Amino acid sequence: LKAAHDAWSGWLVVFLVGVGAGTCAGIIDIGASWMTDLKLGVCPQAFYLNREQCCWAENDTDQLKFNDKGCSKWHTWAELFNILGDNAGSYIINYLFYVLWGFGLATLAVSLVRAFAPYACGSGIPEIKTILSGFIIRGYLGKWTLLIKSITMMLAVSAGLSLGKEGPLVHVACCCGNIFSYLFPKYGKNEAKKREVLSAASAAGVSVAFGAPVGGVLFSLEEVSYYFPMKTLWRSFFCALVAAFVLRTINPFGTDHLVMFYVEYDTPWFFFELVPFLLLGVFGGLYGAFFIKMNLKWCKYRKTSKLGKFPVVEVITLALITAIISYPNPYTRMSSSQLIELLFNDCGPEDNFKLCNYKHNYTLMLHTGNVAASPAGPGVYESLWLLLLALIFKGVITVFTFGIKVPAGLFIPSMAVGACAGRLLGIGMEQAVYFNNDWGIFEDLCKPSTPCVNPGLYAMVGAAAALGGVTRMTVSLVVIMFELTGGLQYIVPLMVAVMTAKWVGDAFGREGIYDGHIYLNGYPYLDSKREFVHSTIASDVMRPRRADPPLSVITQEGMTVEELENLTTESSYNAYPMVVSKESQRLSGLVQRKDLTIALANARKFQEEVVSQSQVFFSNHVPRYSLPGQPSPLKLTKILDQSPFQVTDQTPMETVVEMFRKLGLRTCLVTHNGRLLGIITKKDVLRHWAMLKNQDPDSIMFH
Amino acid sequence: LKAAHDAWSGWLVVFLVGVGAGTCAGIIDIGASWMTDLKLGVCPQAFYLNREQCCWAENDTDQLKFNDKGCSKWHTWAELFNILGDNAGSYIINYLFYVLWGFGLATLAVSLVRAFAPYACGSGIPEIKTILSGFIIRGYLGKWTLLIKSITMMLAVSAGLSLGKEGPLVHVACCCGNIFSYLFPKYGKNEAKKREVLSAASAAGVSVAFGAPVGGVLFSLEEVSYYFPMKTLWRSFFCALVAAFVLRTINPFGTDHLVMFYVEYDTPWFFFELVPFLLLGVFGGLYGAFFIKMNLKWCKYRKTSKLGKFPVVEVITLALITAIISYPNPYTRMSSSQLIELLFNDCGPEDNFKLCNYKHNYTLMLHTGNVAASPAGPGVYESLWLLLLALIFKGVITVFTFGIKVPAGLFIPSMAVGACAGRLLGIGMEQAVYFNNDWGIFEDLCKPSTPCVNPGLYAMVGAAAALGGVTRMTVSLVVIMFELTGGLQYIVPLMVAVMTAKWVGDAFGREGIYDGHIYLNGYPYLDSKREFVHSTIASDVMRPRRADPPLSVITQEGMTVEELENLTTESSYNAYPMVVSKESQRLSGLVQRKDLTIALANARKFQEEVVSQSQVFFSNHVPRYSLPGQPSPLKLTKILDQSPFQVTDQTPMETVVEMFRKLGLRTCLVTHNGRLLGIITKKDVLRHWAMLKNQDPDSIMFH
Repeated sequence: LKAAHDAWSGWLVVFLVGVGAGTCAGIIDIGASWMTDLKLGVCPQAFYLNREQCCWAENDTDQLKFNDKGCSKWHTWAELFNILGDNAGSYIINYLFYVLWGFGLATLAVSLVRAFAPYACGSGIPEIKTILSGFIIRGYLGKWTLLIKSITMMLAVSAGLSLGKEGPLVHVACCCGNIFSYLFPKYGKNEAKKREVLSAASAAGVSVAFGAPVGGVLFSLEEVSYYFPMKTLWRSFFCALVAAFVLRTINPFGTDHLVMFYVEYDTPWFFFELVPFLLLGVFGGLYGAFFIKMNLKWCKYRKTSKLGKFPVVEVITLALITAIISYPNPYTRMSSSQLIELLFNDCGPEDNFKLCNYKHNYTLMLHTGNVAASPAGPGVYESLWLLLLALIFKGVITVFTFGIKVPAGLFIPSMAVGACAGRLLGIGMEQAVYFNNDWGIFEDLCKPSTPCVNPGLYAMVGAAAALGGVTRMTVSLVVIMFELTGGLQYIVPLMVAVMTAKWVGDAFGREGIYDGHIYLNGYPYLDSKREFVHSTIASDVMRPRRADPPLSVITQEGMTVEELENLTTESSYNAYPMVVSKESQRLSGLVQRKDLTIALANARKFQEEVVSQSQVFFSNHVPRYSLPGQPSPLKLTKILDQSPFQVTDQTPMETVVEMFRKLGLRTCLVTHNGRLLGIITKKDVLRHWAMLKNQDPDSIMFH
Repeated sequence: LKAAHDAWSGWLVVFLVGVGAGTCAGIIDIGASWMTDLKLGVCPQAFYLNREQCCWAENDTDQLKFNDKGCSKWHTWAELFNILGDNAGSYIINYLFYVLWGFGLATLAVSLVRAFAPYACGSGIPEIKTILSGFIIRGYLGKWTLLIKSITMMLAVSAGLSLGKEGPLVHVACCCGNIFSYLFPKYGKNEAKKREVLSAASAAGVSVAFGAPVGGVLFSLEEVSYYFPMKTLWRSFFCALVAAFVLRTINPFGTDHLVMFYVEYDTPWFFFELVPFLLLGVFGGLYGAFFIKMNLKWCKYRKTSKLGKFPVVEVITLALITAIISYPNPYTRMSSSQLIELLFNDCGPEDNFKLCNYKHNYTLMLHTGNVAASPAGPGVYESLWLLLLALIFKGVITVFTFGIKVPAGLFIPSMAVGACAGRLLGIGMEQAVYFNNDWGIFEDLCKPSTPCVNPGLYAMVGAAAALGGVTRMTVSLVVIMFELTGGLQYIVPLMVAVMTAKWVGDAFGREGIYDGHIYLNGYPYLDSKREFVHSTIASDVMRPRRADPPLSVITQEGMTVEELENLTTESSYNAYPMVVSKESQRLSGLVQRKDLTIALANARKFQEEVVSQSQVFFSNHVPRYSLPGQPSPLKLTKILDQSPFQVTDQTPMETVVEMFRKLGLRTCLVTHNGRLLGIITKKDVLRHWAMLKNQDPDSIMFH
């Protein structure tokens, strides 16, 4: 029965995490979409409805989506003050309210974060990667973080800041994972087991963020997790599915889809299109490299300059700037998710907003039943300029936004940038093909009466490329995008773009944005992806270095209580190797400083016969009776770890690094012919690594 | 430039493997479908066409698929001999030819395997798992195996034996991987690097077998691979996609789909259906447990009895029996792939074969435009009996087929069994709902005018459950099935069934069929999925045991050439630990027996001054000049491995097993206080494991 409970508790905890993550995501989606619409207007009859719900009764919801006029029931702020019509007055009132709401929401968000949960800021993925690699950050996954991050995420997204809620959703899911794992002692009390739950939780986070359960599992596997045993794979999948299912039941968008920008294409793509897709990949890689470099520079500046001392002011200023610049351009006025949705979608014959302003030949269309390729109208050309401006604005403002003290993911802004670029190129290709359909390569494939180039697909490929350039995700990104489109045939374009983006990006620097932030914050994270190719050996890395004082060791017998106490107070090492005797230096174990201090203090307190001169024995050869005149001995066999990890001094560092990574070591002892030579800690490895990369090893600092 | 070539060679090799695997799969698919049809008839105008291609010109291809009448251009064997009509004569002639072709093809297949490539038999997956865990089987992935396996796979499938080509396709892809990796020294000369290519190749194998690139990668990750660094993930994905793309270009089935049984459903499923899906999972688990137990018993019997000496006779007998029993039942007469395709598909209103013999209300259908649920006609009831017989026959004959000396996968037969069970249950549910649509649970969900229960979906869920029960695959199986249907919404039914199948199956024995065969064949495979929970420590497992003679060790200096030669001839260990001196027993390294033998032989041959009494030095303290009267010393520092893996005697076996698994160790030395105590090899670990499971440790034998 106990075994059954044991086995089930693992499933139960991931089930609960899935339910929790799905529910949080649902609430956040609903809240964010309501507050986002609040910037534009309100539903006077029922203020708690968002624009789409408000206009439910009136039919034309599809056209409503991408234009902010709304329906008769929905009032813009100007209309609410009885300033009707499209005049300067109403424009200014609406503009003012837009900026004010952005200001208000951002202020509320950053104040909540500052006041209640400082850990709720940022994307959280760098920290979760570090936690999953074995480092513990207390309170990072607590219930306050969960609550405040959920609330401020809605606020920050609605404020119109250029940030997304995908990374923070992973953090929120991990908070759920941490909280629920305390319900089961097996998981709550064992950090390694808890990390399994967290791996599953991060899969659930991506699953609800993109409606992509399989992609979520792969994301957890590829990007977030450090150890990923098979059992975790299966549980992560279960967790991701449960979360997706719960979110679908909540149905925040009322469309039966889990994300706003789900699309289904039904036109094929042609081989010649691989060239533009490749170009999009190059763009994605370049943008990623630019973004990473600039963002890290700005974050470093924030850390070292006065700016870091005024996070609230920074957020509010940024929110004001963003709102002021965003409003005039309709493509930045709408939320990034809506923009992505708009750009991903193809133009139907009845779509009458500017981006779809084509000079359709309706006679031909009626005849063939297809939406044929058509020349672009003036609205499309205007959109091109606005999209270009949106691209530049979003690309630049995100550099300053990622890292501010509110929850901020960068999936959505990166995708928006890529989608703009993709749509621009897509429209260009579409028109190029239309006006040159007598060229050899286009002629056979693209009939004038059928659609040929699909600008929406280009937007999606561009989004994938930009996101790939920024995060350097690969398989998981392709699968997430593939789950968004629901067609296996678009995997090749996506893969071409993502792969190119990664290669181009890697040419400018191998680390993705998350690794960059891990390094910037000095977390002790041993990258498991990079290969260690240098030919150094363990004795090059171990301490003591040649000039250093010898290692502080403990002998198995013969040291007195006082000597040990002095050792623990004088040196600050976390652990002391133990040798059989100072002469032989034969290694016999490892003692944790913490254990030693506690054991000595306890002995002093409760064992009256123990005095400063008492000999301490870590072996089993304690003399039965103390010799007359000698103080009675103290036996501390229990605190000795008799199986420390050890390598010889000649072991290549490649092997040592493998051991640290795969076995999750913190320390490793170095021996030569059975004699203790030195010690290697995770910190030493990281320092050595930094040195080999010509970086300052002292910049590797742990908090 | 070299670095670039280095980086690119990795991509190039997986690209070539993908092309190779895709091409092989295409040829095999085309060949097998032609030869399968040959059993039923021939296209006299162009004998090289299969039935579908022969009847290309005549329109009714959809109806043709599932009935063996064919068109006017296609002649059954009876028709070829001018015996027309549906009489006993033509039945007997056709039956005779069916059996004869089965006999002929099977004989050819087994003869080719026996004559040219004995490794070409079986599914290959257990062996590939073993190879990827670090064991080397020479010639197992050679070009002869590739060629013969490809040819005999077609023959064996066409012979009508109850086997599939999915497992063997993985083997073929791995052969491609092995062969192409020799083009690149970086991969050909490094076994660890080659295994990365093989991991990618096995993903490509599944990708072409099921048209499921993502599923293939997950299959490689979950089931086949042992080490799976992130780089491999990305390359595997690329390889799988290239393979799928090449296969699609070859287009063996002329349908633009990569597998025969691709389906797209468009009806939803309802919550109450989870109950039958769960039942299918239970069936799958039970069938899997039954199959594994029976198959392993039969394979053991074959190994130990006279039967093992007549593999050719066994195959031919089995082929005859299968053909004779198969022909009368139309559902076993067709190939398993066709059967699966038939069962997965839903009945359209125009389908007029027996399985779709419903009493449709055409007026209502015209009215609503839906294929409404209808009462079953007599054809359906007849089909139920035939399907039940097919289920039993396939279920039993596969037990005897898996393990014979021709290429034999069990994905397809297992899926066929599950699909039969699923379809039976599906039709049952369909009729139950139709006749009881006034029940509470059915009423709200299933309107009488719309289809409600989809028997094709049940077949697919059943197929997944049966395959899950047999192989104990989980995530990868769900994803493969999901890629077959192309709809995210069927993931939940599939997951429920696969999960139930795994749990039910695990209750009867935790190992899947592949692990069972690995164990049966005594391959040195350390299962990376199972947890090691026992509290033994290293000194319990190491050799020498208490009663054994002491360990054969070499001292760093002082041993003579003769002594070492005696050591290598007298003992059969693969490696000898080296100590500083016999007295101190301090460990200083490990010498491989092979290196030692070669070095000594070379010294004897080329260094004249080396005589039997020469002292051998493994350290750097070789005396410059030999003392007068003493033979000159021999220095063998080079062959000493100065960084062997070592653990202390108190290390828990859990940790030791982790090290063996994650670091891919073969031997590990055991020390106590720096002194050598013993040695643990992979074999010792496996033996210990078997002992803990109350199995005979001596049954763990390596070939």
